[in-house]
Amino acid sequence: MAMQLAELPADAETLFTYDKDGESYRHWSVSVDGRIATVSMNVDPDGGIVPGYKLKLNSYDLGVDMELHDIIQRLRFEQPQVGCVVLTSAQERIFCSGANIYMLGISSHAWKVNFCKFTNETRNGFEDSSQNGGLKFLAAVNGSCAGGGYEVALACDEILLIDDRSSAVSLPEVPLLAVLPGTGGLTRVVDKRKVRRDLADVFCTSEEGVRGRRAKQWRLVDDIAPRGHWDEKVRQSAERLAAQSKRPVAGEGVKLTPLKRTISNDGYQYEHVDVAFDRQRNFATITVKAPLDAPPRDGEAMRAKGTTFWPFAMARELDDAILTLRTNEPELGLWVLETEGDGERVLAYDDALLANADHWFVNEVIGMLRRTLSRLDVSSRSMFAVIKPGSAFAGVLAELAFAADRSYMLEMLSNPESSPKIRLGDINFGAFPMCNGLSRLQSRYLGEPEKLEELRKLVGEAIPSGEANDLGLVTFSPDDIDWEGEVRLAIDERAGLSPDALTGMEASLRFGGAETVWSKVFGRLSAWQNWIFIRPNAVGENGALKLFGSGKRAEFDNKRV
Amino acid sequence: MAMQLAELPADAETLFTYDKDGESYRHWSVSVDGRIATVSMNVDPDGGIVPGYKLKLNSYDLGVDMELHDIIQRLRFEQPQVGCVVLTSAQERIFCSGANIYMLGISSHAWKVNFCKFTNETRNGFEDSSQNGGLKFLAAVNGSCAGGGYEVALACDEILLIDDRSSAVSLPEVPLLAVLPGTGGLTRVVDKRKVRRDLADVFCTSEEGVRGRRAKQWRLVDDIAPRGHWDEKVRQSAERLAAQSKRPVAGEGVKLTPLKRTISNDGYQYEHVDVAFDRQRNFATITVKAPLDAPPRDGEAMRAKGTTFWPFAMARELDDAILTLRTNEPELGLWVLETEGDGERVLAYDDALLANADHWFVNEVIGMLRRTLSRLDVSSRSMFAVIKPGSAFAGVLAELAFAADRSYMLEMLSNPESSPKIRLGDINFGAFPMCNGLSRLQSRYLGEPEKLEELRKLVGEAIPSGEANDLGLVTFSPDDIDWEGEVRLAIDERAGLSPDALTGMEASLRFGGAETVWSKVFGRLSAWQNWIFIRPNAVGENGALKLFGSGKRAEFDNKRV
Repeated sequence: MAMQLAELPADAETLFTYDKDGESYRHWSVSVDGRIATVSMNVDPDGGIVPGYKLKLNSYDLGVDMELHDIIQRLRFEQPQVGCVVLTSAQERIFCSGANIYMLGISSHAWKVNFCKFTNETRNGFEDSSQNGGLKFLAAVNGSCAGGGYEVALACDEILLIDDRSSAVSLPEVPLLAVLPGTGGLTRVVDKRKVRRDLADVFCTSEEGVRGRRAKQWRLVDDIAPRGHWDEKVRQSAERLAAQSKRPVAGEGVKLTPLKRTISNDGYQYEHVDVAFDRQRNFATITVKAPLDAPPRDGEAMRAKGTTFWPFAMARELDDAILTLRTNEPELGLWVLETEGDGERVLAYDDALLANADHWFVNEVIGMLRRTLSRLDVSSRSMFAVIKPGSAFAGVLAELAFAADRSYMLEMLSNPESSPKIRLGDINFGAFPMCNGLSRLQSRYLGEPEKLEELRKLVGEAIPSGEANDLGLVTFSPDDIDWEGEVRLAIDERAGLSPDALTGMEASLRFGGAETVWSKVFGRLSAWQNWIFIRPNAVGENGALKLFGSGKRAEFDNKRV
Repeated sequence: MAMQLAELPADAETLFTYDKDGESYRHWSVSVDGRIATVSMNVDPDGGIVPGYKLKLNSYDLGVDMELHDIIQRLRFEQPQVGCVVLTSAQERIFCSGANIYMLGISSHAWKVNFCKFTNETRNGFEDSSQNGGLKFLAAVNGSCAGGGYEVALACDEILLIDDRSSAVSLPEVPLLAVLPGTGGLTRVVDKRKVRRDLADVFCTSEEGVRGRRAKQWRLVDDIAPRGHWDEKVRQSAERLAAQSKRPVAGEGVKLTPLKRTISNDGYQYEHVDVAFDRQRNFATITVKAPLDAPPRDGEAMRAKGTTFWPFAMARELDDAILTLRTNEPELGLWVLETEGDGERVLAYDDALLANADHWFVNEVIGMLRRTLSRLDVSSRSMFAVIKPGSAFAGVLAELAFAADRSYMLEMLSNPESSPKIRLGDINFGAFPMCNGLSRLQSRYLGEPEKLEELRKLVGEAIPSGEANDLGLVTFSPDDIDWEGEVRLAIDERAGLSPDALTGMEASLRFGGAETVWSKVFGRLSAWQNWIFIRPNAVGENGALKLFGSGKRAEFDNKRV
């Protein structure tokens, strides 16, 4: 039990990747019937992503969640007629018992935090789909539902609980493990479901949870049904939810083909995305390439392009790069964001997306872009955008610069013609909200909201460095004499700062203004969990998380902090 | 340097109390000229509240901040004609260099966190006064202003910076110490002053900070002035701010007399507040007593009562009890909140407060109540309200029940007549917002806002247990057969849970819904800081906070979490 997960050396043997073939899942089964997809959890106890624990009682680890993420992605794109996903269990009397405790007990701090972040993003993705005309989600809780199991349910549009005198929903993390229900649980209980705070207190300190009528009275579930009426109730609810989805009742899907990707010790190469490591100086350069062609003429033509449709292909690759970097390269603390190609082509694609947003596939692609950019925002890495000649910081790719903590834009005094340009598109004004509900431009100009109107007038124009700096679109615009030294110094200074302090600082500075359930989950709940995850009361020799299952009782230092 | 602050045994020798005599301050001077009070920082290097460091360069520790808190309290009440407080420095070329780093380096985790919370509350108190017709605050930054020094300035209504080519504002915590500017700094930079997030990133990673015109351009200060025009500029700004205060231009103040308090190993006794420890079972019972008389007939009569005016006397005592418990009794993890006396008398006082709220003293008393209740909300202790016969959970004292994590109200089946009652007053519907801007009732009924209208109709009525439970005003209403066992079990179960997990859980459940700068400071920034404060990169043997001033360079584990 004292074993710690290896700290992930970057060699091929221990590399963790997120893409699945979609052919067979070890822990889930999927069946589709008309508008309804039923996704049943049936975790293979021997299928842990790393050795050292058994995934009993439908408990999960990162590998189980990677499969769930892949399943939802495929339903989004491959099965457009599906309007509602029913999440349920194939195991007897157990819906899901949450994140595997033995896994948490032996994991390094960084592994736990990364695992929580990804599971949070997958859960938030349910809500993102539901809010944006995509899939609706129904939790059909047909057995006991604890911890992360209930957190999955909380992320669904509705929760049905079987009323069988034994099945309860519960968040037993505090009493059992001395950690928080950190996959959004606490926040969703009071902020999303609006459970009264004192009832939430009782609920979250109870090991056994709440069942039946009381669970409904306390707003913990939407409805209950006895076993005899269960299937009918689930079907009715799923159909009602499916009817609320804007997805088509029929239509040809887009098969998710495998990513074309090369991974080496120096970086990752995809078709539209390139990641180059500088291990000496602790940073990675992520370069995203603009499209080489004009967009297809309408939504159906875009769908016909499928995974080769540039915005979709690019988003899939960027998303994969972010996840792979996060999990495997914790020492590359700075991501330098670059772009390459023709910015006008990017804008042409963006405009085509907006013009065809009522096509289900286009809507899903916009959603994929939105969630991918949102992953960037909550990544615990510093980000600098570096804007050079030949770059394409336009429209959706300009969001990379606005997501960055800073941006450097070269001003070519020697050859003004070849200075890089930024191009704004309509897509920058609301299509890609951050997790706090604000666009990156809104967030950038919190203090000067009137600036947004000024910027709107510049849509489509090529904005050179000096002007971009005057407008506040970039942080610095060094000239060609200073450029190399200034960018190099900024990168090296960043690498010299404490990674922990930067993580806390960036989480605070990136999300000014409004808050949502999601931003509270990432900024508030996760911060508390980070703290609790390294406190002796949880992970010390006699901490509750360490001792779980040993028969020994945790010993707490009772001092409040 | 390896010494840790003592972990505060509860004997008289090491007991820390917050009340000051107001006669002389060791670290500050105060001068009042008409509507303007000038509060000048001049920290005595040898005046640390605990031994082990020197308070050089106008750096501060808890003791310095206790004095500041006392000064502001006395200005609020003793000098009603003061409309604006000018915070400045009496030291040459140094405004304030922030929290003392050596103090932070040798402090225990709990001491650091408690220190940060109190300083946050004092800073938020500036803004609370300003927003509620009380004192306005001007930071007259007449020298270099770093870290906590700038955080004090950020809490003011306006910041003036002397333009002398050397004085800068800075938040150098991240680069120098590997911790956050955690007294609200990061949050106020982007959320209050709305500094552009990339400029904030540059600012918060720079040791030297920003001065002169650039500081103004970046919104870090409101205005600058050279030394020749400094005094005039400060005076003009202070007068303009003072004119915005609703405080009177003349009037008799209320001298803050010393609290009558007895502290023993068993608890604290005040006139209206009693605190009894149960060290065996790790809880403290805080009992607040209702007034024994009717309220004075108008605002001036209330002022004439001064510190004996019940709401004011009670608030001062409760505030002191909270601060003393927090600092000296970290193992008493649960506060049981009780009341005693005649609830109708409480409502009479509340109504009198509301009816005379335009009197400066009454307005200040309401502010004191608001801030005291807000201290409860952000205290890292569990709170249970226990509502028994003879209690007075009415109006302002009912807020104690609504602030609690849970409430237990006895239902006397054997003698229904003597069952306890809850009484609501108009004062419960907005006079005492929590730090997130919501009233405790709004927060309680997030999911059923329509309930508030129903409750309004019950203002003034005596609501017995069963009805209070049906209305959702209390968590449980056990009958006299179950009462003792149920309350005892709840208390003992709470004491068995991890204090860290409870702190994180309570911080998440107490503040559903809206967010403000203050709730972001307490819930988000502080949570990150808690985490960073125990990470080896800050406090390990080679951590930046530990090594500061040693000439040695910190060594970081570069892995991002």
